[in-house]
Amino acid sequence: MDEPDFSLKDAHICIVGLGLMGGSLAIALRRALWITGIDLDPDSCEHALQSEIADAVGSDLSLAARADVVILATPMQTIINQIGELGAIMKPDALLMDLGSVKTPVVQAMNALPSHIRAIAGHPMCGREVSGLRYATGDLFQGARFILCPTERTTPEARSLAIWLVQQIGAVPTEMLAERHDQAVAAISALPYLLSAALTQVAGEHAETDAFIWKLAASGFRDTSRLAGSDPVMMRDILLTNADAVLQEVEQAKIQLDELAALIRSENVQGLLHWLSRAQVHRHHWEESQKKK
Amino acid sequence: MDEPDFSLKDAHICIVGLGLMGGSLAIALRRALWITGIDLDPDSCEHALQSEIADAVGSDLSLAARADVVILATPMQTIINQIGELGAIMKPDALLMDLGSVKTPVVQAMNALPSHIRAIAGHPMCGREVSGLRYATGDLFQGARFILCPTERTTPEARSLAIWLVQQIGAVPTEMLAERHDQAVAAISALPYLLSAALTQVAGEHAETDAFIWKLAASGFRDTSRLAGSDPVMMRDILLTNADAVLQEVEQAKIQLDELAALIRSENVQGLLHWLSRAQVHRHHWEESQKKK
Repeated sequence: MDEPDFSLKDAHICIVGLGLMGGSLAIALRRALWITGIDLDPDSCEHALQSEIADAVGSDLSLAARADVVILATPMQTIINQIGELGAIMKPDALLMDLGSVKTPVVQAMNALPSHIRAIAGHPMCGREVSGLRYATGDLFQGARFILCPTERTTPEARSLAIWLVQQIGAVPTEMLAERHDQAVAAISALPYLLSAALTQVAGEHAETDAFIWKLAASGFRDTSRLAGSDPVMMRDILLTNADAVLQEVEQAKIQLDELAALIRSENVQGLLHWLSRAQVHRHHWEESQKKK
Repeated sequence: MDEPDFSLKDAHICIVGLGLMGGSLAIALRRALWITGIDLDPDSCEHALQSEIADAVGSDLSLAARADVVILATPMQTIINQIGELGAIMKPDALLMDLGSVKTPVVQAMNALPSHIRAIAGHPMCGREVSGLRYATGDLFQGARFILCPTERTTPEARSLAIWLVQQIGAVPTEMLAERHDQAVAAISALPYLLSAALTQVAGEHAETDAFIWKLAASGFRDTSRLAGSDPVMMRDILLTNADAVLQEVEQAKIQLDELAALIRSENVQGLLHWLSRAQVHRHHWEESQKKK
């Protein structure tokens, strides 16, 4: 990929939301570019400035006015609101991107921007169950797939610049329509979170009568419940902005659990083994797919 | 804990089932004791002998006749069958233990042994999603909780010897009634596995129409689906021998998923946040409990 025409030596990047993702992005891009960080939390702004994660900070979205690239790293619902506000703030031909986990509503909001603004929707397939700037690291995106979804505001130059930025942070750009992305992440991202959260609720209710249950829970519980530790505000927004696809996946999971329960209840030795073996094969398919990344 | 009267310098330990667990146990005990390994698979026996994991090997359970301690590391259903057979094989006052994941049927089978045999039921709270002797390591039990459930054949000497053996392999002995153990592991061990398996089935069905879904699945999917890779035969036996408790937990998980789906469907912003926050708190409780282990 050639470097874009757009001269990035002097580019001014504005990152809105200095949490885990926005902070990590700032660190990853910091070497080359001038970075303005916007966050409502004064402590995060202060920390970003003192640790030289950003060159300038503030709480007001109007700080994005001078940026060549504005990247939204705020929760899903905030991203959608901020896209609307930025139409009147950003300078002509500047590029707007986001890191939100649901893409259809972002693409819709970007399509409604004034025609002089370029925009492309993005989703880096990485993260941690912890949140906040103090966990930010420059290598968070290293080797991760970074989905880019085209909008009606995606010019060829905007696309090239977005791909270049993604490569700068060590991620792998992958272009995909927003609808296909949202159905997929409902199955492989939202559903794991919901199952993990349901697990901790069930175990938590047991713990109310037998607290020792926590001490018995070992590595299997640790891994399966890890996602339940995710930021509830972030996850709520992800679930509500992708509700139709998420609800379909929950329904599918319940169908699978019903099948399982029926096989156990009827002591169907062969049928249960067949079902569990198929689940194991699917897991192996995922493992194989990761090797060929 | 004092060393038991029973002289373990000369003790002969027989481990039945040279898989991940039995093999790891043999390695962990190997330094001090004479070990006979029993397995139906000639390759495992050969490997155990050549790599000096066991001093003698064979496929016939009657090899347990000379042992001072017999430890069953076979799948759950096999453990129950073998306890019945060992009543006529083991020498008087020898100790029978097991590593099975469900304890009520094991305790029942041990209670039916001739009165000259000592027996205690055990469950080390550790494991891996891979199986087989080639994955066995001597440190598998290090720091893990090792549940011991009393039976009508558990004399004070049998109990002391079992605790001593557990400490020898670096595990933490914890005594508990079988029923309490089985209800707890249904929630914190079987349920995580079933949710993990249901997840891979749902994702696997998506992959049939959009195989790219596997490539999008990142660390969240990796951890939540890890247990689905477990040995299906082992898991089937665990589920069927603890069916009542397991079915109750599946029912509880479905109730939680229904609550979640209702909150998402009705766009209950506050209620959903409250629910997800509670799940996060439960996960933190588990984390805290691990620090105080």
